[in-house]
Amino acid sequence: MPPVASFVEVLPDSDFPLENIPFGVISTAQQASPRAATAIGTYAVDLLVLAKAGAFEGPQLGNGVAERVFGQPALNEFMSLGRSAWREARSTIQATLSETGPSKLRGNKTLQAEVLKPLNSVQYHMPAQIGDYTDFYASKEHATNVGVMFRGKENALMPNWVHLPVGYHGRASSVVVSGTPITRPSGLILNPQTKAPEFSTSKKLDYELEVAAFVGIGNTLGDSIPVSQADDHIFGLALMNDWSARDIQQYEYVPLGPFLGKNFGTTISPWIITLDALEPFRDPTPASYLNAGTYDAYDVKLEVAIKPPSAEKPTVVSRSNLKYMYWSFKQMLAHHTINGCNMRAGDLLGSGTISGPTPESLGSLLELSKNGSEPFQLTADDTRAFIEDGDEVVMRGYCERDLDGHRIRIGFGEARGKLAPPKPAPM
Amino acid sequence: MPPVASFVEVLPDSDFPLENIPFGVISTAQQASPRAATAIGTYAVDLLVLAKAGAFEGPQLGNGVAERVFGQPALNEFMSLGRSAWREARSTIQATLSETGPSKLRGNKTLQAEVLKPLNSVQYHMPAQIGDYTDFYASKEHATNVGVMFRGKENALMPNWVHLPVGYHGRASSVVVSGTPITRPSGLILNPQTKAPEFSTSKKLDYELEVAAFVGIGNTLGDSIPVSQADDHIFGLALMNDWSARDIQQYEYVPLGPFLGKNFGTTISPWIITLDALEPFRDPTPASYLNAGTYDAYDVKLEVAIKPPSAEKPTVVSRSNLKYMYWSFKQMLAHHTINGCNMRAGDLLGSGTISGPTPESLGSLLELSKNGSEPFQLTADDTRAFIEDGDEVVMRGYCERDLDGHRIRIGFGEARGKLAPPKPAPM
Repeated sequence: MPPVASFVEVLPDSDFPLENIPFGVISTAQQASPRAATAIGTYAVDLLVLAKAGAFEGPQLGNGVAERVFGQPALNEFMSLGRSAWREARSTIQATLSETGPSKLRGNKTLQAEVLKPLNSVQYHMPAQIGDYTDFYASKEHATNVGVMFRGKENALMPNWVHLPVGYHGRASSVVVSGTPITRPSGLILNPQTKAPEFSTSKKLDYELEVAAFVGIGNTLGDSIPVSQADDHIFGLALMNDWSARDIQQYEYVPLGPFLGKNFGTTISPWIITLDALEPFRDPTPASYLNAGTYDAYDVKLEVAIKPPSAEKPTVVSRSNLKYMYWSFKQMLAHHTINGCNMRAGDLLGSGTISGPTPESLGSLLELSKNGSEPFQLTADDTRAFIEDGDEVVMRGYCERDLDGHRIRIGFGEARGKLAPPKPAPM
Repeated sequence: MPPVASFVEVLPDSDFPLENIPFGVISTAQQASPRAATAIGTYAVDLLVLAKAGAFEGPQLGNGVAERVFGQPALNEFMSLGRSAWREARSTIQATLSETGPSKLRGNKTLQAEVLKPLNSVQYHMPAQIGDYTDFYASKEHATNVGVMFRGKENALMPNWVHLPVGYHGRASSVVVSGTPITRPSGLILNPQTKAPEFSTSKKLDYELEVAAFVGIGNTLGDSIPVSQADDHIFGLALMNDWSARDIQQYEYVPLGPFLGKNFGTTISPWIITLDALEPFRDPTPASYLNAGTYDAYDVKLEVAIKPPSAEKPTVVSRSNLKYMYWSFKQMLAHHTINGCNMRAGDLLGSGTISGPTPESLGSLLELSKNGSEPFQLTADDTRAFIEDGDEVVMRGYCERDLDGHRIRIGFGEARGKLAPPKPAPM
């Protein structure tokens, strides 16, 4: 059975077919106040205008609920409604945009002009107000690769790593939406000759290829979320670039963990892909050593590209996959709350850098260039060891498979950010 | 010159004389919506009602600003107005509560009944919505004591410690106001016999005696706050108990720092004491080795007491002082933003455990009981190594000195929390 098509044109390689229905926050030239949106083909869909037109009349979103939650500048309240409301929104939107289902939009050209805005004309905003952001370290390959470089082979993977998803608290204030420039940070960096720290701009500016989960339904302080129920607490996934200043990080991180080496900026993609959209892409063949009953990987192809200022296009430098994660988001959420720590709608859980087993699947330059010691050819006339001023880092992700004889493809869009030169030190 | 007195009775050992004017958020039986308040003697002062009565007519808070910012359920917007507004609020309130200054309240018994509420009758709320909470590690004695226990004498103080204020991101969602119960957490804990982790309730539940600064004025992502301007960005200080599960912490903390051992609950006192109120208590005699031009200690006496369920009163177990901090809040703020990390009004910076050089000034049970190996006599019939279920931990702080022949005393109130027994593990 062919999938239902949209009356809006969707090209075969689009990230946003009718099966996707991601959620984000946009503003437009005509509508300056940020509001909820989804995407179809090359268009953003203004959900507030759609709600005002009466498109949401189900039990969860009717009676003015859709108008209220989609009219806010962040998705937190929509997220807090729970999975049945997310599903009602998704199926209502799918019908509204379809060629055949009940729709207030399909036959109404005037409404279409108000609701459908070309993606390249909209302004993206943070999809949620992030209360707390936690970053994990869930790729065994990445943890091992970095451990070897920072602590030597013998201490690369700490004994606790295989027993729990190691994580730490990140900085919520500096998580920014795709397109926001990132300024090269300064800080104290160890001079390897003198063995003394020196104040300097970072010389080892790196990206980290990550995927992050947004919490939908939280829990009360003192309670825990069981791993068996964790899926219902996760609103969806987005791409994330956890920018890292390796030289600042290496000097500061003992004994309390990464701090200024990370919190100068974290880029996320504007669209959140729901677990319902990703359901067909659960990885069907987990390696048996990982499959402990809670294994829960998604087959999401990931790539990192770098565009130097002189280049026309980004060059792909890494191809990885979300299924390389050793620990799942469900496990992270269960672990994070086992001590009673409370989650709130909009909280963010990062996967940590997703590196795979092969050289082309390394998710950071720290790993790709062996901490700068092996620069690689980026373009015909440019090499890279770390990110240089003016470089734009572009992360993309998508799922693709044949389902019932038809190819379906769901994309994450982009997490994009350009590195701005350092500012002068304050006096 | 004797200080100006309040027309409200203030006993000599009160935490809240006219010189203090702390800020917090309360609700009352009559006024259920949380609003800004200050304290005088044994009374909370409802600042929203006072604002509605026209008490704030200065350039910063007039024209409806006071009514707007004091009517909110958190002080963030008031904090974001800046130091001249904080000073205008403080001096207006001081005059309003004084025996002699211009006051809409002094002669108006009806208004007094609406504005002055006995402290023991009000409900405290979090004084600010905390966007991000960072905890530092600024007492050299504490860092050394803990380092010896966790990593041995040779690695106790890492080489970076004396070069920068070591800090890490904490969890904002689980910071709670004084009086909120804390549930004993469970987690993975190393069994020292088998060397394997086991799931268990924490057996090493500890407090940490801290003082925390609330950020008032933030900075834009990419910019820094110079140490010379940091004071103007700090709204004020509060007491903080950074509850810690030492056994969970010790197993999880390598290499990314403390996580579940800390984020199950952090208690702060309801009142924020402004830097203007603390100005007379800047420590005049810093040890010369600490005085590098940015030294900025306050002489605030701190104490920790424990009240077992069977006892009538808490027993003081530790007496420390804020001046024992090696790194100041100004230095923390300058360090935190040197890489461009952005602060927002309401962000919280914890000092880390404040231990002094003497045995009675140790700020945690980890240090007091030598990681549980030396339990101490708490009451005639009770010893303690760590906190037991039902124990209430009470932290207090105050400044005291003679000024112009008169004794002045400014108190922080209390940060109080009772440990509730663990909940069953989720399945």
